[in-house]
Amino acid sequence: MSNTQKTRTTVDIYGQQYVIVGTENPSHIKLVAEMVDDKMREIGSKNPNLDVNKLAVLTAVNAVNDYMKMKDHLERLQNDYQKEKD
Amino acid sequence: MSNTQKTRTTVDIYGQQYVIVGTENPSHIKLVAEMVDDKMREIGSKNPNLDVNKLAVLTAVNAVNDYMKMKDHLERLQNDYQKEKD
Repeated sequence: MSNTQKTRTTVDIYGQQYVIVGTENPSHIKLVAEMVDDKMREIGSKNPNLDVNKLAVLTAVNAVNDYMKMKDHLERLQNDYQKEKD
Repeated sequence: MSNTQKTRTTVDIYGQQYVIVGTENPSHIKLVAEMVDDKMREIGSKNPNLDVNKLAVLTAVNAVNDYMKMKDHLERLQNDYQKEKD
């Protein structure tokens, strides 16, 4: 057995149940699932003709885009502080 | 008409074409789509019985999780630097 404690968390996203297995805290997993559910509903309400599959893919695109913006922001901040130190 | 220039970028994710409309640079959109495609293939290879819909939702969960970790990291960094300044 691995030393890392695995958790199984059941979440509901867009009317479907998913069991998420991982090392994260279940309350964190539930929060993440809620954000995905919200985002799917937001994109779905703007694009009522999208099927669920495309809706989920576009939600993933949206989330990766947000991730990359945050990463850029973090890198710029790190550079700025590094310059201040030098 | 809006002042913000909208772009239409066609991308291929997991064998499906999507037209992404937005204000982002098309090369950025293509990079994001590639990351989603890679992540779907990675999750799909580990869970060969998942249907595409669930696969896309789990990819979105994964991306939002990465986003939140990055956000925490950014906030901690901002706090640390703020403390240094004070």
